[in-house]
Amino acid sequence: MQMVKAVLFDVFGTLVDWRGSLIADLTQFGRERGISADWHAFADAWRAAYRPSMQRVRSGELAWTILDRLHRLSLDRLIEEFGIGGLSEQDRQHINRLWHRLRPWPDTVEGLLQIKRSYIIGPLSNGNLALLVNMAKAANLPWDVVFGSDLFHHYKPDPEVYLGACALLDLAPGEVMLVAAHNDDLAAARRLGLRTGFVPRPQEYGPNQKRDLQAEEAWDVVAPDLVALAQALAPRQKA
Amino acid sequence: MQMVKAVLFDVFGTLVDWRGSLIADLTQFGRERGISADWHAFADAWRAAYRPSMQRVRSGELAWTILDRLHRLSLDRLIEEFGIGGLSEQDRQHINRLWHRLRPWPDTVEGLLQIKRSYIIGPLSNGNLALLVNMAKAANLPWDVVFGSDLFHHYKPDPEVYLGACALLDLAPGEVMLVAAHNDDLAAARRLGLRTGFVPRPQEYGPNQKRDLQAEEAWDVVAPDLVALAQALAPRQKA
Repeated sequence: MQMVKAVLFDVFGTLVDWRGSLIADLTQFGRERGISADWHAFADAWRAAYRPSMQRVRSGELAWTILDRLHRLSLDRLIEEFGIGGLSEQDRQHINRLWHRLRPWPDTVEGLLQIKRSYIIGPLSNGNLALLVNMAKAANLPWDVVFGSDLFHHYKPDPEVYLGACALLDLAPGEVMLVAAHNDDLAAARRLGLRTGFVPRPQEYGPNQKRDLQAEEAWDVVAPDLVALAQALAPRQKA
Repeated sequence: MQMVKAVLFDVFGTLVDWRGSLIADLTQFGRERGISADWHAFADAWRAAYRPSMQRVRSGELAWTILDRLHRLSLDRLIEEFGIGGLSEQDRQHINRLWHRLRPWPDTVEGLLQIKRSYIIGPLSNGNLALLVNMAKAANLPWDVVFGSDLFHHYKPDPEVYLGACALLDLAPGEVMLVAAHNDDLAAARRLGLRTGFVPRPQEYGPNQKRDLQAEEAWDVVAPDLVALAQALAPRQKA
């Protein structure tokens, strides 16, 4: 761990509660507009479209498309499927931008501030840069640098994302740690030589979450939350 | 100004005192190592190589090359020309990295902190991302986002840099302001539709500076320093 100079973070699920935020914001929007729908199911269906939509880009079926646009394509489809009527273009833009205002988990900001004292910190996310910058302003995520997938025209777990960030930082993969709540993201990072940190987020997908409840490999650091991870990474531990 | 959502900054000269920093650090290095040279002239010659070296990339003579590497190429040449002997590879790397540790002008950090309250802030620099991130950590520049020229594989004043940053932020050029101490940088930004802010740095090139002593066009904002510029940009002024 002595070598690590930058700690990069997965964002959706690892740092922010996308499901709780979307459900709360969609419910409020529906109440204000007199639109009733199963917003829990809607939020879950929206997120369920995430991987397949990126896979269309990763496979080459779709040319490079930023996440905001993929979100919008699946949003328009789901509005039809859920039979939600009366939404203007402005409404749809508002709903799509809810991803820019997701709220952090309670330990996120304090953990980042502590890690920032000793390391370069930044997101390494499939979100596009504008989404990540707007989210950081709203949620007080104190980034030193922001890596969105649109810098690389690739989505994780494509190697170009992990190695592209290392190259831009002029750091070797072994000098960079990825922190994520998802074992597959960490496995991709480890295969490329990055260090790895795992924080479980057992409520990310709600009460019935089945996956990523615990570390599935011996990651370099495993901690119950981001403040504990900061303690494990503190310089006195590096000696 | 009501439309502006992001304020981006030229860095070398506008925010940091490259000349004073290089002279101080080179002088200290020379003293510690018992190497005497005209470090004032050396610093000025190194900076004088800046535009011609970028021009080689802009013209296509040289494939895309980051600024750290251009600095190193001109450093190696100048060490020969100044007849400075006994420098190891490690010494040369140390000297080249002085650009990562340039010191801000006295008003820079306070001005950025104030502007950050109401706008997205970031560098829009010909420096590479690693240089800018390391500089920000050392000098406490509180960026929301970092745009290095290596994100675009172009150097200012190529349009790709200005428009590339706007696109990544998902903002129209008219929603982005460039702040610089150099009239030519602002002229390039204005031609592309960005808003412009000028802060003079009459000591950037030392006591005999001839250029950029004042605003040469009616830029959107002209202020004597960055704290005054922050006041001019404060939200109460936007109504």
